[in-house]
Amino acid sequence: MKKVFAGSCIAAALLSAMVAGSAIAEPAKSEKHAKAAVQFRQALLQLVRSNVGPLGGMAKGAVPFDAQVMATNGERLEQLSLMMADYFKTDTRTFNVGTDALPAIWEDTADFQSKIEALTTASKALQAAASSGDESAYRPAIGAVLKTCKGCHDSYKAD
Amino acid sequence: MKKVFAGSCIAAALLSAMVAGSAIAEPAKSEKHAKAAVQFRQALLQLVRSNVGPLGGMAKGAVPFDAQVMATNGERLEQLSLMMADYFKTDTRTFNVGTDALPAIWEDTADFQSKIEALTTASKALQAAASSGDESAYRPAIGAVLKTCKGCHDSYKAD
Repeated sequence: MKKVFAGSCIAAALLSAMVAGSAIAEPAKSEKHAKAAVQFRQALLQLVRSNVGPLGGMAKGAVPFDAQVMATNGERLEQLSLMMADYFKTDTRTFNVGTDALPAIWEDTADFQSKIEALTTASKALQAAASSGDESAYRPAIGAVLKTCKGCHDSYKAD
Repeated sequence: MKKVFAGSCIAAALLSAMVAGSAIAEPAKSEKHAKAAVQFRQALLQLVRSNVGPLGGMAKGAVPFDAQVMATNGERLEQLSLMMADYFKTDTRTFNVGTDALPAIWEDTADFQSKIEALTTASKALQAAASSGDESAYRPAIGAVLKTCKGCHDSYKAD
């Protein structure tokens, strides 16, 4: 059980109030805390990327449209979007951590939250498009998801 | 849009058939493919860890029981467990990649799948315990989740 518990105190401090909801900034308590926050939010974004990648491939025509993948990945993106506010809650600005997250995330939490919600909305719409079976709706629905990635990165991710 | 699409071909190859379901091994097509698979599955496990950590803290008494956190993290663990078979589908055994994943994952996919399903089941039960409001059920429900972590790591993760 030891390995499961490893780092549990930091994780507990980090996520003890972890509930779905709006983006409320809380300063990191230590460099260790800040680094754990960075690690976890980067993991979340990697999972987002792993689901967006195949959709991008379909939009470009690199792989055929696959309604089942669109539905599954759309559902996963919706779920991941609902974790995002919690995972960015810890304000890491005062610590020297390797991150592409821009300070604006904790300066305009309402706008950051709206960018998160745009992904939730687009992911739901993608699932609806996939289940409609209307192939003409596929590319626009994928494009709308990708637009929310870019929309957030433009404001909140370092180039 | 460029950054969103970066690596989309690999991701598409990796996840083009990504649907929830049983663990079916497919050999990695290249070292690049294998490395992307490792990166994505490690991200998934980091997210699992970020949700398990606070639960471990509660079980140890390091932080008070919080039914809302138990419910939220239980739901997230359920969702993440349902991604796990897809994220471990790519058999990376033939490539030199840094991984703690043991070869047995792709040698006994049925057992590996059963270990995944144990997490799904325990995560659902944790949500039920949290919503019951019966505090005497909290520690056993958390313990059951942690047991599934250990149960899988014992067989499928390098020490």
